[in-house]
Amino acid sequence: MHWSRWGDPAQAGPLPDSALALVDAFLGTRDTPAVPSDEVRLSDPLAPDLVDELAQLVGREHVLLDHETRLHRTRGKSTPDLLKLRSGDGLDSPDAVVRPGTHDEVAAVIAWCVRRRVALVPFGGGTSVVGGLAAEREGFDGVISLDLVRFDKLVEVDHESMTVVLEPGLRGPAAEALLAAEGLTLGHFPQSFEYATIGGFAVTRSSGQSSAGYGRFDSLVVGLTMATPQGTLELGSSPANAAGPDLRELVMGSEGAFGVVTAVRLRVRRLPAVKVYDAWQFASFADGSAAMRSLAQAGMLPTVIRLSDEAETAINLARPSEVGGESAGGCLMIAGYEGTQEAVDARRSACTGLLDGLGGTNLGEEGGRAWAEGRFHGPYLRDSMLDVGVLVETLETVTFWSHLDRVYQAVKSALTESLGESTIVLCHISHVYETGASLYFTVATRQSDDPVAQWYAAKAAASDAMVHNGASITHHHAVGRDHKPWLAEEIGPVGVMVLRAVKERLDPTGILNPGVLIP
Amino acid sequence: MHWSRWGDPAQAGPLPDSALALVDAFLGTRDTPAVPSDEVRLSDPLAPDLVDELAQLVGREHVLLDHETRLHRTRGKSTPDLLKLRSGDGLDSPDAVVRPGTHDEVAAVIAWCVRRRVALVPFGGGTSVVGGLAAEREGFDGVISLDLVRFDKLVEVDHESMTVVLEPGLRGPAAEALLAAEGLTLGHFPQSFEYATIGGFAVTRSSGQSSAGYGRFDSLVVGLTMATPQGTLELGSSPANAAGPDLRELVMGSEGAFGVVTAVRLRVRRLPAVKVYDAWQFASFADGSAAMRSLAQAGMLPTVIRLSDEAETAINLARPSEVGGESAGGCLMIAGYEGTQEAVDARRSACTGLLDGLGGTNLGEEGGRAWAEGRFHGPYLRDSMLDVGVLVETLETVTFWSHLDRVYQAVKSALTESLGESTIVLCHISHVYETGASLYFTVATRQSDDPVAQWYAAKAAASDAMVHNGASITHHHAVGRDHKPWLAEEIGPVGVMVLRAVKERLDPTGILNPGVLIP
Repeated sequence: MHWSRWGDPAQAGPLPDSALALVDAFLGTRDTPAVPSDEVRLSDPLAPDLVDELAQLVGREHVLLDHETRLHRTRGKSTPDLLKLRSGDGLDSPDAVVRPGTHDEVAAVIAWCVRRRVALVPFGGGTSVVGGLAAEREGFDGVISLDLVRFDKLVEVDHESMTVVLEPGLRGPAAEALLAAEGLTLGHFPQSFEYATIGGFAVTRSSGQSSAGYGRFDSLVVGLTMATPQGTLELGSSPANAAGPDLRELVMGSEGAFGVVTAVRLRVRRLPAVKVYDAWQFASFADGSAAMRSLAQAGMLPTVIRLSDEAETAINLARPSEVGGESAGGCLMIAGYEGTQEAVDARRSACTGLLDGLGGTNLGEEGGRAWAEGRFHGPYLRDSMLDVGVLVETLETVTFWSHLDRVYQAVKSALTESLGESTIVLCHISHVYETGASLYFTVATRQSDDPVAQWYAAKAAASDAMVHNGASITHHHAVGRDHKPWLAEEIGPVGVMVLRAVKERLDPTGILNPGVLIP
Repeated sequence: MHWSRWGDPAQAGPLPDSALALVDAFLGTRDTPAVPSDEVRLSDPLAPDLVDELAQLVGREHVLLDHETRLHRTRGKSTPDLLKLRSGDGLDSPDAVVRPGTHDEVAAVIAWCVRRRVALVPFGGGTSVVGGLAAEREGFDGVISLDLVRFDKLVEVDHESMTVVLEPGLRGPAAEALLAAEGLTLGHFPQSFEYATIGGFAVTRSSGQSSAGYGRFDSLVVGLTMATPQGTLELGSSPANAAGPDLRELVMGSEGAFGVVTAVRLRVRRLPAVKVYDAWQFASFADGSAAMRSLAQAGMLPTVIRLSDEAETAINLARPSEVGGESAGGCLMIAGYEGTQEAVDARRSACTGLLDGLGGTNLGEEGGRAWAEGRFHGPYLRDSMLDVGVLVETLETVTFWSHLDRVYQAVKSALTESLGESTIVLCHISHVYETGASLYFTVATRQSDDPVAQWYAAKAAASDAMVHNGASITHHHAVGRDHKPWLAEEIGPVGVMVLRAVKERLDPTGILNPGVLIP
């Protein structure tokens, strides 16, 4: 991962001319380059006596202090994170990066942090877009990044129960490669797939582009092991049960504030023999979302289903290689099917019949292929925009069907009112449920002199609009630091009290990812 | 509900001669009648000054002290509960029954209990089989039963989102009648359906006989309102989200120990036009369960699927009106389909094809109808047995497929070793998941001189066998008092610490259902 851009810039390719022309016409462009990486100011490295103590726990080669290593574990990949780094501000960096290799080493590092009052930030793929990696330093004698990179194994495969145990540091592609060798898949493909990790997926409640078919990540988790300052929590006696509150659901979404997850037991599926993605056109966003609702409530969903609004369809954002090119008009839907040939045929035929009857026009497989090929490419476009004075960021929410249009309009208005004219707001639905759906917004505007403040103001307006219109502050991006005020509103004072009670009992010295999650 | 028997004894009908003959032959019979209800010893009624204070909160007509009312809210419906009452021991009775009519009245009663150090037991249908209604009196100046009977309304219907808000005191049939008027159903039909309530289903994580099609009750819950000593907790901003730990999953399974649920928002489905249940025969329990696993992992489950083991099939317990009659031999499976005619036809055809290929013999609809007609009748049989010196009780567990046979054998052995010869142990699978399944055991044996102690010893042996063989202490019966020691083993000391932290923060004086759930 690049220190101030998404992914591997060699994979980014140039921005399509059509896209650049579009941006130039709408927003204007100017050069806004990043500072060189060695000019980024970081925190002071951890004191040598503390480093020596950590080295005794995990080995000296696994305690790293150099500029590059610490820079790469500074904040996450939100646009404000990137803007700060590009401007030379790396002051949220960890003072050291520590790489334990076993659960017991993690437990030992946690115990050491408690003794030495050093804050600990668990690090997986570093892809947080909500400030989940920017610990509060106040009151601590240092901040370390606990890098889970050495937790990279497939620990157990149970072909009969169709479960596996994976270590938390495995990135999406590495996890899928290990599973593919067993003929299995998680089917979890969020846009961050290429860099995000199994542990991160679990503690942030990730949701992938195939969630309609394979389920949200939290629905795949059947067990977890978490090291805490009070000892180890082992959960997952069974697929489902009535043995009191489901504590797995407390670990999921905990973002390192309750402990460090060191193993995850997951439901898996057989590798699909067939994957096919159809493109569909609907006259309007309302027609397309009504069709999605019909499918969801009929229990007849494709594996992948997403719908771009009119603006996103016009700009072709669902197909990054074609951004700015000619679009189909109306609203583009992708309906994808994965599984055995027989299952795909049956499901595709049933869904096609329903979509036909619901006003859809089948555009065939070509548009679906273009989406599938570009599906992980979106974040690279953002970097190209940040280079030319354009601010691009995304945010997302989820609500019940009966609130969907209200929330859609309210968030769009909040963003355009906050950012002013020459702002482009695009939206798609990419996760649907019987009772509701997600809304994922992409925003582009001309950068002001203080683009970080510019974005936070717009984000606050959008977040207010979500919470006041009966939507959640986040469908799959988690809470981090950025969503805390709205989480407090969403779960209310008694909900906050419960989170604090758990936090204070498990982590009484508060060393675990301080400042994150807990309002 | 009868005070010492299940349901309405007028509905019980006589025990089939075939069943009585079978029991007489295997276990022998003798008369073991219950004492008359007015001879049951109850706790002293609540002190008059406290009654006066409660009357000010909810109205005098809603504070009840009479013998019958208190007797009917004494303990639940486990066999030990019934045996104690039949012998005249009602000392776990509430000192008063209080019936608030609004959320604010519930909150006021809770606040009063905190001030007066009076324990509060929420009461819905009174069908707990795990001691969930037997509060610990030690340290309190009284125990009240907070009866939710007046919470009986359908508060809201959202046809677009397919959600409803129901009040917690609604029993299964009343809730379904209100929904049917809207063309809707929950599809939640546990054996306790006729008496258990919406609130009870939620706080015990109930699972119904149609769980394969409609889902466990916890999967139907999208929102909850709970009154606690610290204020009101309102959850359920959206179908699913990433806004931190899912606190709904902490309320579900909380059994009144964290607060009193006063409203539940639920996912609903359209009333099925067609319901059809097929009977199937498999050569063995192993063959039948392998077939269930294939269906679950192919994503091709009927709405209802259950499989009796050889012993349960032989005794015909799946069809109560035919107990002791001629059985099909092998293992009986019921596969039921509900929905539109088109959906039922498609699903039934696909499942029938799979079951044919997996060694099943289709016995047609007659056996399925017999099961459906007798599905809520099982508990009545138990009462007839308790009358004639036979101890009958059930227990259940859930585990992963790869542990299923081991757990089945271990629990059976534990029960027969504990209860000695002349013990009948029957089992069925009635809830299946991609990763595992439930096991539901029915046990019959000759009553000893102390049948309560006799059963608790057997239950302990069975519970040890579950936890030591990788199964949960309960699939859908909750924790109550009876499962606490094994819950502690299942979630470990850190898990117990989390439950205690939440309990102590929300209910620092410990008045909420003391002794229940929290190890």
